[in-house]
Amino acid sequence: MSRKKIGVIGAGTAGLHLGLYLRQHDVDVTIFTDRKPEDYAGMRLLNTVAHHAVTCDRETALGVNHWPGDKWGYFGHYYYIGVGPQPLRFFGDLHAPSRAIDYRIYQPRLMADFLARGGKIEYREIKGEDVLSISAGFDVVVVCTGKGPFGQLFQLDAAHSPFDRPQRALCVGLFKGIKENPIRAVRMSFAPGAGEMIEIPTWTFNGLSTALVMENHIGGDLEILSKVKYDENPRAFLDLLIEKLRKHYPDCAALIDEKEFDLANSPLDILQGGVTPTVRKSHIVLEDGKLAIALGDVHSVVDPVLGQGANAASYAAVILAEEIVKQNVYDERFIELVNNRRNDRVLGASRWTNFMLMGLKELQPEFAQFIGALSQNRTLADIFTDNFNYPEKQWDVFASLSRMQSWLEETSSQSPLNISLAANDRRVSDLLAANA
Amino acid sequence: MSRKKIGVIGAGTAGLHLGLYLRQHDVDVTIFTDRKPEDYAGMRLLNTVAHHAVTCDRETALGVNHWPGDKWGYFGHYYYIGVGPQPLRFFGDLHAPSRAIDYRIYQPRLMADFLARGGKIEYREIKGEDVLSISAGFDVVVVCTGKGPFGQLFQLDAAHSPFDRPQRALCVGLFKGIKENPIRAVRMSFAPGAGEMIEIPTWTFNGLSTALVMENHIGGDLEILSKVKYDENPRAFLDLLIEKLRKHYPDCAALIDEKEFDLANSPLDILQGGVTPTVRKSHIVLEDGKLAIALGDVHSVVDPVLGQGANAASYAAVILAEEIVKQNVYDERFIELVNNRRNDRVLGASRWTNFMLMGLKELQPEFAQFIGALSQNRTLADIFTDNFNYPEKQWDVFASLSRMQSWLEETSSQSPLNISLAANDRRVSDLLAANA
Repeated sequence: MSRKKIGVIGAGTAGLHLGLYLRQHDVDVTIFTDRKPEDYAGMRLLNTVAHHAVTCDRETALGVNHWPGDKWGYFGHYYYIGVGPQPLRFFGDLHAPSRAIDYRIYQPRLMADFLARGGKIEYREIKGEDVLSISAGFDVVVVCTGKGPFGQLFQLDAAHSPFDRPQRALCVGLFKGIKENPIRAVRMSFAPGAGEMIEIPTWTFNGLSTALVMENHIGGDLEILSKVKYDENPRAFLDLLIEKLRKHYPDCAALIDEKEFDLANSPLDILQGGVTPTVRKSHIVLEDGKLAIALGDVHSVVDPVLGQGANAASYAAVILAEEIVKQNVYDERFIELVNNRRNDRVLGASRWTNFMLMGLKELQPEFAQFIGALSQNRTLADIFTDNFNYPEKQWDVFASLSRMQSWLEETSSQSPLNISLAANDRRVSDLLAANA
Repeated sequence: MSRKKIGVIGAGTAGLHLGLYLRQHDVDVTIFTDRKPEDYAGMRLLNTVAHHAVTCDRETALGVNHWPGDKWGYFGHYYYIGVGPQPLRFFGDLHAPSRAIDYRIYQPRLMADFLARGGKIEYREIKGEDVLSISAGFDVVVVCTGKGPFGQLFQLDAAHSPFDRPQRALCVGLFKGIKENPIRAVRMSFAPGAGEMIEIPTWTFNGLSTALVMENHIGGDLEILSKVKYDENPRAFLDLLIEKLRKHYPDCAALIDEKEFDLANSPLDILQGGVTPTVRKSHIVLEDGKLAIALGDVHSVVDPVLGQGANAASYAAVILAEEIVKQNVYDERFIELVNNRRNDRVLGASRWTNFMLMGLKELQPEFAQFIGALSQNRTLADIFTDNFNYPEKQWDVFASLSRMQSWLEETSSQSPLNISLAANDRRVSDLLAANA
């Protein structure tokens, strides 16, 4: 049989991991993108992304783990829940380090790897209507750029798309002048009624920086951070930010060296806006009878609060690549087998993230109790933290109230600490009173 | 946590394998059935079922493989395609023996095993409206008796239920007086325009017999076999049957010793009727909030032509049992995880069987070509035969014409015989001319 030819629209993590796997198996791959490797250094921040250990392992298998976790990674999560006079603070370990690299460094490096291994890249702007003409040259076309009209090609999966607008007003940026924590780790801070903030140790052009992923509640005290423009008055922006951090995220504020505190490289290091979480159908059959397959953000876009998007995209990309190599006919049965393997994690990432967006905003009693239990039992906190690698396992925990209760009971009974749920209940009452 | 309690309505293969697995893991299980073990010997034939090696392996793991394949099993399939003056005949191997035991022996034996291992059986007639009251005593109720109104509890899955009536007029019975083939094996005979017949070496009360599973085309020459009653005139029935076998299934007819030929044990050894292939939704949420889960024929009932029903039921039963042991909350996420594991095979059995019902009836050119290729290449015939163990793999082959073509090319290229498709094409023309 003739050599397989795969077309990939989009050079993000999904497209690159897909292409790199296919090149390991001698498949003819062409990636279409309008960004050249040399363009990235001068671009605005693309996003703030951590790759969890499962994704780093995938990179190792693809031969592109240029940033091993022992040197470039971080090792766990600090949690800060800002309720009342006595906030909750606790820590959870990752089984192996996660790692965050500025995508303006990561993506062009992997493009170079892809080219060096015989991958082809066509640099041109692709429009939605070009998919059919591109399809003519390939056995299958994979669409994995969320930009422009490509998402619209794939029908909305209403059952898994509960929101019609962004759930947070986002302000994300790379900053210098924030001292490191005792352990190199992410800090996830929850400020009930105002927002959440994720601090991620992130390597950028000038070395190690801190990504601040500010997930501001719409209508709350922090929403303004998604609107005030750094460019118009950098000092005013930074002063406002420091003021808000002091009020809502004091553990981060305490680490700021005000003389140093600024965007890490340049005014391009900040992004503001919002994401509407959306799941779309996995594929369409084009007029020529071939499949166009949705991958990455085109298939499922999630709010960045839990850092699941790129990890799910990489997971799905390698499964799709494995099936392209294994199977020879790219029909509806093909995509069914791909979906049978990828969907539980892809949907898990989406469902768990959507649940947390709601849970963190409303801090319902059962959810508050759950967090209270984590804060008192290191085993629970470690498992919860490491399960950022496995969003479908998080969904196993959060899919129903009975599951949350059952997981706490079952997991704490295996723990040497043997959590007292009664004591915890009182703690939860404090939480709720403070939050009322 | 308190001990799990599971209620099972139905004591067929699905219910028994489920119950036996759960008893291996100390779950409290009650099976509800209206048949006592001692009733079975006096009952009419229940069906004609072969357990493939994957099912026998499951029985070994459950500690109930009382009929090991090396003694009780059969070793492959003879195929007979009755087209024109020169019928096609070929053989395919199974990787390990399949085995057929009269369910009037099998089921009560496994009931005894279940009881001996601490399982409980309540002997009473259950009506559809009893499910809710039964549910009150259990964490989850599994419904796996197709009898009566239970199927109606579960919504029809229209996307996987293409037929609204039986596709074959069935006559199945256990016979004596048919000599064995050189290899102990099933013979699958296809009589285009008239029907299919599966001969299965089956152990019954009087020892080894031959199950004849006559799948008669509705409106064809063989349909009468589903209507004429043995009881009204045994000699007339047998004479008619011999006449039809001589005409349509000569390889079977040639093995008949007319003096001996009769039902194997008694007039109860024959069943006539038809099956409407149906897939139903996997579960309902009862008024008390608990799940009732469909298993076996209640979930998916298939025509017996390929012998997939009991094998798929056993497969699904053990997966359900594993998940009941592994998980602690029986909610929609629970059944989603069960379905993620069981559905590809359960649906594979249904889809492949439905495809073959159509393919064997119409003998379209591509399907005829496919069978022609099997007949000329032992490797193809062996793989096709062994894949009766794995109906989802058969669906991988038959889900589209491109897949059938691709499988022939790919598989024959790995074979020492290296089939000539051109030669085969001529053969297919013969087939089609003969069948026109």
